[in-house]
Amino acid sequence: MKTLDRNARGVYLITVTPFADDGALDLSSTDRMVDFYLERGATGLTILGIMGEATKLTAEESRIFVRQVLARVAGRVPVIVGASAAGFAPMRELTASVMDLGASGVMVAPAPTLRTDEQILAYFDMVSDTLGPQVPWVLQDHPVSTGVQMAASVVTRILKNAPHCVMLKHEDCPGLAKLSAIRAADANGDIPRVSILAGNGGGLFLPEELGRGADGAMTGFAYPEMMVGVCQAHASGDVQRCHDIFDAYLPLARYEQQPGIGLAVRKHLMVARGAIASAMVRRPGPRLSASDVSDIQRLVQRQDKRLQELGAAA
Amino acid sequence: MKTLDRNARGVYLITVTPFADDGALDLSSTDRMVDFYLERGATGLTILGIMGEATKLTAEESRIFVRQVLARVAGRVPVIVGASAAGFAPMRELTASVMDLGASGVMVAPAPTLRTDEQILAYFDMVSDTLGPQVPWVLQDHPVSTGVQMAASVVTRILKNAPHCVMLKHEDCPGLAKLSAIRAADANGDIPRVSILAGNGGGLFLPEELGRGADGAMTGFAYPEMMVGVCQAHASGDVQRCHDIFDAYLPLARYEQQPGIGLAVRKHLMVARGAIASAMVRRPGPRLSASDVSDIQRLVQRQDKRLQELGAAA
Amino acid sequence: MKTLDRNARGVYLITVTPFADDGALDLSSTDRMVDFYLERGATGLTILGIMGEATKLTAEESRIFVRQVLARVAGRVPVIVGASAAGFAPMRELTASVMDLGASGVMVAPAPTLRTDEQILAYFDMVSDTLGPQVPWVLQDHPVSTGVQMAASVVTRILKNAPHCVMLKHEDCPGLAKLSAIRAADANGDIPRVSILAGNGGGLFLPEELGRGADGAMTGFAYPEMMVGVCQAHASGDVQRCHDIFDAYLPLARYEQQPGIGLAVRKHLMVARGAIASAMVRRPGPRLSASDVSDIQRLVQRQDKRLQELGAAA
Amino acid sequence: MKTLDRNARGVYLITVTPFADDGALDLSSTDRMVDFYLERGATGLTILGIMGEATKLTAEESRIFVRQVLARVAGRVPVIVGASAAGFAPMRELTASVMDLGASGVMVAPAPTLRTDEQILAYFDMVSDTLGPQVPWVLQDHPVSTGVQMAASVVTRILKNAPHCVMLKHEDCPGLAKLSAIRAADANGDIPRVSILAGNGGGLFLPEELGRGADGAMTGFAYPEMMVGVCQAHASGDVQRCHDIFDAYLPLARYEQQPGIGLAVRKHLMVARGAIASAMVRRPGPRLSASDVSDIQRLVQRQDKRLQELGAAA
Repeated sequence: MKTLDRNARGVYLITVTPFADDGALDLSSTDRMVDFYLERGATGLTILGIMGEATKLTAEESRIFVRQVLARVAGRVPVIVGASAAGFAPMRELTASVMDLGASGVMVAPAPTLRTDEQILAYFDMVSDTLGPQVPWVLQDHPVSTGVQMAASVVTRILKNAPHCVMLKHEDCPGLAKLSAIRAADANGDIPRVSILAGNGGGLFLPEELGRGADGAMTGFAYPEMMVGVCQAHASGDVQRCHDIFDAYLPLARYEQQPGIGLAVRKHLMVARGAIASAMVRRPGPRLSASDVSDIQRLVQRQDKRLQELGAAA
Repeated sequence: MKTLDRNARGVYLITVTPFADDGALDLSSTDRMVDFYLERGATGLTILGIMGEATKLTAEESRIFVRQVLARVAGRVPVIVGASAAGFAPMRELTASVMDLGASGVMVAPAPTLRTDEQILAYFDMVSDTLGPQVPWVLQDHPVSTGVQMAASVVTRILKNAPHCVMLKHEDCPGLAKLSAIRAADANGDIPRVSILAGNGGGLFLPEELGRGADGAMTGFAYPEMMVGVCQAHASGDVQRCHDIFDAYLPLARYEQQPGIGLAVRKHLMVARGAIASAMVRRPGPRLSASDVSDIQRLVQRQDKRLQELGAAA
Repeated sequence: MKTLDRNARGVYLITVTPFADDGALDLSSTDRMVDFYLERGATGLTILGIMGEATKLTAEESRIFVRQVLARVAGRVPVIVGASAAGFAPMRELTASVMDLGASGVMVAPAPTLRTDEQILAYFDMVSDTLGPQVPWVLQDHPVSTGVQMAASVVTRILKNAPHCVMLKHEDCPGLAKLSAIRAADANGDIPRVSILAGNGGGLFLPEELGRGADGAMTGFAYPEMMVGVCQAHASGDVQRCHDIFDAYLPLARYEQQPGIGLAVRKHLMVARGAIASAMVRRPGPRLSASDVSDIQRLVQRQDKRLQELGAAA
Repeated sequence: MKTLDRNARGVYLITVTPFADDGALDLSSTDRMVDFYLERGATGLTILGIMGEATKLTAEESRIFVRQVLARVAGRVPVIVGASAAGFAPMRELTASVMDLGASGVMVAPAPTLRTDEQILAYFDMVSDTLGPQVPWVLQDHPVSTGVQMAASVVTRILKNAPHCVMLKHEDCPGLAKLSAIRAADANGDIPRVSILAGNGGGLFLPEELGRGADGAMTGFAYPEMMVGVCQAHASGDVQRCHDIFDAYLPLARYEQQPGIGLAVRKHLMVARGAIASAMVRRPGPRLSASDVSDIQRLVQRQDKRLQELGAAA
């Protein structure tokens, strides 16, 4: 099993959970999906997040899915499991269970009821207490889904208080100034170094986020090679190339980022790419119309053309 | 096992979940609590609701608690189990499990993400589909906790569409006009007769709600005899007596209804009354201060005096 | 004109805005209402708040109403004007206008968009800047209407930063611990003494709030003599009498506090008491049903009886 | 004055409100801004919207700004004024005032307190009643700012009930299915034909929205020629050209659409383009950092290059 630590870099894929057309877990697609991500350069996986339809699984299904992913990954990259829960007893239970199965760490977002800075800080003290000293964890800052706004100063205080929180999943928007502020806090020694992976708008600000000090991306866009290519170009210092790759994928990435139907778009693309067998989303969930599918086809064709040109120019 | 049906009346207690001082489930207090409620005239119990700290229990703890309550009740009154869940697979799993154990039905509130009438109606069609034809269920209308506003016309449409929804837990506020409208809909044959139990503000409008056609109360005030007495006086046609009993308890009921610390007040009172051993609330949860405790003592003493006078006048 | 200062005590009435049946401002009722409040012992008035339907008035109507109230009060008690606004230019304009007319100060709540402690503190620095050194002002802490949760530590920091904020309108719930904490902060010299008037639930926790150090009430219950009597009994050290008076009014006060139709109940009661001519609420606004009116009548009759008994026992 | 009617097409610019560095209204920049928009092909203007900082203006400033814009436009294109207000009396007052000055119509969004379909429909009946038969108006559907979700069926019912609502500003997301449904409703005669202008994400879905039947765009991107070019290409049936133009501007448009700092980015770009003199945003408002400015410069340079290539390929 790969360890999750403060120096994690690269592209962590937020995986979908593949279902068969009848809604059952599709374990064979789970294997193909893992291969698909790793072959395209993923340096980590994050499972059972919002886009993984975690809340629509039974406890038993969750365990089966986690076990399948871990078996297929076979220790090649770290696997993070979403562990946000309405209470600490279920959070402890879920965490213990997935760490036993071989997960590298868990990811926790603030409970939707939190409002004041004090409440948020107290909550993450309890999270630290619940997870204990053996479990590296990721702080997920995603106000769109939680409704909880954490100021940069609050995030740094959480990171200071929580010795085992080794990574920040940065998804606040506008978030560039916040990312700069948090990175500055570890740069000047206020807090220990933390890995920051950016997921804002599903990666829609990735080049700029890398420019502010992000270590990579944690997002689920159906073309992982976009994030991998952008990160590599950035690492090599080629800012224009970084934007060129990003821009080539942006029209489709934007379409996949529509709230509500985004997950259906993503699964549709993954089926088209051979990564999973069915685009099934469990209820309640979106369905694509013929017009949506035709929009996607046009965007994919145009993207293919741009990628060819980009290759030629490279 | 007692069946839950459209003619249910009386007082269904929203139970707490008793913990020991160390936070573990307290099964012996669970038995005492069941006795406490039934001895004071409860005609039903509702377990694993919000005030039952359901989200703070592990799956295993939930099963143990449900089993303990059902064993102690031993079929004397119906037991309803909260089954609101973020997804339908866990809702189906939980429901099957508790019905197997002997529950009489489940209670479901709308998912917090729902907004439009169409979304709400579609959601409850899926709930009906998930629960199936064997499980009688209760529709919980509690906008304060869910954020979902259901118009009276939406509630009646849900009731019309869902043949196995036999009860409405009415907790919208202002809700008297809504209660009148829904009762009118079954009175004039638009929908089948439905049992309506009122829980608004923990029973703070009970006399008026009975006046609008409620069949009783579903709430958790630490003095169940208040709701029982109010319902009996109402049933006997003695409106003044109904209010006299209610008014005697109102100052303390109001104090117990404070959002945030209400559950701590309730458990404190239940300890004082010998119903449970510890006032422990699992984290994150409120703690009472010395001033809170002194407020409660004063209110209890004054209530005792009023109840004596009321007895004398009875 | 009476000054608003840090030692303000007693009962500030949140006034309604009287309209004629056709919806026009009713200035003659405005005079009667002012007399009604002052004759019953109000030590201040607060106009153009939420329950004053401020947002439903044109700018010209607001000016006319403020002028009428100030003329009738004629300097006998301080008059506070609600000045919460979506922007600082309109806040400055409104404040200048009402101070010119003779108001004693203004009341400001946090903008509904604020979330983090930093945002809230920065906002009130701008409020201070906008109002300037000549205008005493009241901080309104009312999460139910604003959606903004301010921790006790944030309120004390605002009070520390804002030398001209002389009063706190305390309406958070649960709020007793918060009230204790803020009072402790001025008691031990962390912040200058501030007047704290309680308005929680329209006064539904007044006896307990006085016990925690509130200087009085700011609320709009149609029986101002309740708040006046409770405050006087508290001031004289007679805690039981304080509760006796409170309890006598509680069943009706509770009914008037229903969200949504509360203002219609209040205006109905004020018409019945001869304080205003019409119960008209401007659209969009609630209307009472025959059942509502009958509920109110019963509650008033029962209250009259209790008050008689209380007088006999006094 | 140009009339606003059901056949309106093209690009309506959501204007900013130009301020001088000291925060005062900048009327000379107002003239330049009007010229800038019209020279680039705007077929209408919308003023005093959210991005126009309407709530930060005094009533007098609003009047001055409206008068200045109308004078400069001199009847060449329709001018719509935002008239959403917390009450109907101010809405009527503002509408009468701006129509007197020569506006072509007003735009109204649902009040943030509305939740159920019934409440929303009743609200817009009151809006119709308030605006009367002389004022053409635009329904603004923007859940991100109002928090109000209107189902497609609700929008069509509003349009059916309101004979003078001639235009829909479509800003719900995901919104393509909704747009299709509303367009279908007028195509099949359920409702009268209505002009639909798309503003989703500031135009980030414009090509797809035109494909679903939108008549054009209403948005404020600092490069109006993007929207104009996209609409013209679409009208001429050249879908690829439509996307080519759109894609060329997308990376910058995306950056300008960041919530929170978007308006500062827009004003910065408009200063750079000579449309206004100062990027001043009134408090509380965002400020750009040096890193933000450097991001923008890079995006503009890359955009200029793409536009050159696009011209060459045209």
